[in-house]
Amino acid sequence: MIDFGTIDAPDADIADAARARHGRLTKPPGSLGILEDLSVWVSACQGVCPPHPFERPRVVVFAGDHGVTAAGVSAFPAEVTAQMVANFTAGGAAINVLAEAAGATVRVVDIAVDADEPHSPTIGAHKVRRGSGNIAVEDALTDDELAAAIDAGRRIADEEVDSGADLLIAGDMGIGNTTPATTLIAALTDSEPVAVIGRGTGVDDAGWARKTAAIRDAMYRARRISADPIALLRVCGGADLAAMAGFLAQAAVRRTPMLLDGVVVTAAALAADRIAPGARQWWRAGHRSTEPAHTVALRRLELEPIVDMKMRLGEGTGAAIALPIVSAAVAALASMATFDEAGVAGSTDQ
Amino acid sequence: MIDFGTIDAPDADIADAARARHGRLTKPPGSLGILEDLSVWVSACQGVCPPHPFERPRVVVFAGDHGVTAAGVSAFPAEVTAQMVANFTAGGAAINVLAEAAGATVRVVDIAVDADEPHSPTIGAHKVRRGSGNIAVEDALTDDELAAAIDAGRRIADEEVDSGADLLIAGDMGIGNTTPATTLIAALTDSEPVAVIGRGTGVDDAGWARKTAAIRDAMYRARRISADPIALLRVCGGADLAAMAGFLAQAAVRRTPMLLDGVVVTAAALAADRIAPGARQWWRAGHRSTEPAHTVALRRLELEPIVDMKMRLGEGTGAAIALPIVSAAVAALASMATFDEAGVAGSTDQ
Repeated sequence: MIDFGTIDAPDADIADAARARHGRLTKPPGSLGILEDLSVWVSACQGVCPPHPFERPRVVVFAGDHGVTAAGVSAFPAEVTAQMVANFTAGGAAINVLAEAAGATVRVVDIAVDADEPHSPTIGAHKVRRGSGNIAVEDALTDDELAAAIDAGRRIADEEVDSGADLLIAGDMGIGNTTPATTLIAALTDSEPVAVIGRGTGVDDAGWARKTAAIRDAMYRARRISADPIALLRVCGGADLAAMAGFLAQAAVRRTPMLLDGVVVTAAALAADRIAPGARQWWRAGHRSTEPAHTVALRRLELEPIVDMKMRLGEGTGAAIALPIVSAAVAALASMATFDEAGVAGSTDQ
Repeated sequence: MIDFGTIDAPDADIADAARARHGRLTKPPGSLGILEDLSVWVSACQGVCPPHPFERPRVVVFAGDHGVTAAGVSAFPAEVTAQMVANFTAGGAAINVLAEAAGATVRVVDIAVDADEPHSPTIGAHKVRRGSGNIAVEDALTDDELAAAIDAGRRIADEEVDSGADLLIAGDMGIGNTTPATTLIAALTDSEPVAVIGRGTGVDDAGWARKTAAIRDAMYRARRISADPIALLRVCGGADLAAMAGFLAQAAVRRTPMLLDGVVVTAAALAADRIAPGARQWWRAGHRSTEPAHTVALRRLELEPIVDMKMRLGEGTGAAIALPIVSAAVAALASMATFDEAGVAGSTDQ
């Protein structure tokens, strides 16, 4: 039922051509460091060297509530999820401002917000249910809901790529969502809960203890399925996380580069790369979040974050902060003069 | 003779107002991490909260040759300095591309290129001499040349601020310039040469040994003046480094925020903060270079770099890569909605 086929790698020949071009640009070989790696990757994803500037970088924020907030795992009340969806629509949230600064546009999708829709129908076109189940005591989703959520993410990726998106960022919004995200990462990486559980939006010590108990309970419920990413998304994930996983996998199918955000998106990415092996070749990690589980997940995905700004907001903000660096890297590879063009002498040891 | 007066601090009351505003924006307190610190700093430098977007961010590249290249300390021939000045003018260098990507413009000034001027007269308007002396065996500058170089940097800062520059970046171009820069940093921080000497543009092992010998010789020549930053610039610095120091100090006098680049600019910054104590309050470190001396100098200046992209190019490129992050931080503080404006509930523990 859930099959993304074989994920191709970005174009290795183009990557070689991009590396060779870097050697001809007017700078010491390798002196642009990670910018060189990023530009080679984009070139290989695009299948062309020199690469072209991003024309339609796009952030998709997946909003959903989580029944586990009833366990007191967050510093914010659950109604904030719906309020923030309205804030995204009005353009007042951090991701609106940071995406605009990076030249990207923002779409918000209501996958499982625990509210009737006060917003435009398009935001709710892919809605799966009102809130996912309380993973401490029950499954997050039914089988049908899981399939619907993954399919929603897949269709959203297709919609975006068909509309010309050439760089994608997945963002998250959902009070309590670091609880299922951390559960998924702990289960998929066989980590001890206390080693990976963070403060989320800033829960206090008592809340952190409640969050830890909820994650232990959810992991106990999932103890026999920890090798099955799809079952994990259903039992201890949520509709928003499942939709993100479908989105991430399908964007790789569509050969579209993606910048990962923080712990919630990266939990979905860890599942998506298991469901669609090789998908991670189309991703780079935008930033390192302060959530411990994020670093564990990135290590498993073998991705090094571009920036480390001690951010812990989600919404896609960490990836949005990294986007101008990737865009600048692309510009350097595409637009710098070569030694021959500029009449500059090369290194004496060449 | 060389006196920048008292350097004021950025406005502490405005910094408090900026921190308070961050607490009212629709995000968990502190969740934007270092972006919050950066935006508070810009606000305090501008003396206004919310801060305004940068209208004229400006990169000034200080070009100069160094007689010490005769000792074989670089992987590139000395004539590349003049060739690169032409490349900057034509817009083909990395700093041209990365500055444009960041919304900044670039000016190149010939302070001490070892060539007659094939370029426009304005580039050479502040020229001090053709190449600085070989610091391994002689002083880099005479007393008069030192004064002229510092004054050139001061006048360039005034020209830029008078023309509306509201964010400055100093860049460097000069084959061999990491040799005097490393000498200055080692002398000003009392470091062992081998602990701080890097590969510059990529010198091989034999070249690294020659560079180390040259730096040891220069440090020996400077052994009695290591507490005197002005004398150090004259004896084992260079005209470009002295001009940068004047530029950095005067920009602080003019209350203009500055992003530091790599090892060469930061060597000048270390001297400038000694010459004009407190100047560093107007600076942030754009990036961490791979040159070991850079990290030593940043630690002494108590500055944490914004990004670490393993870059080692100079020209202002590391600061240019950080600029979009600072701009985004300013946008977040200025343009995000507050909890009241957006009708979003705050943290339950507030």
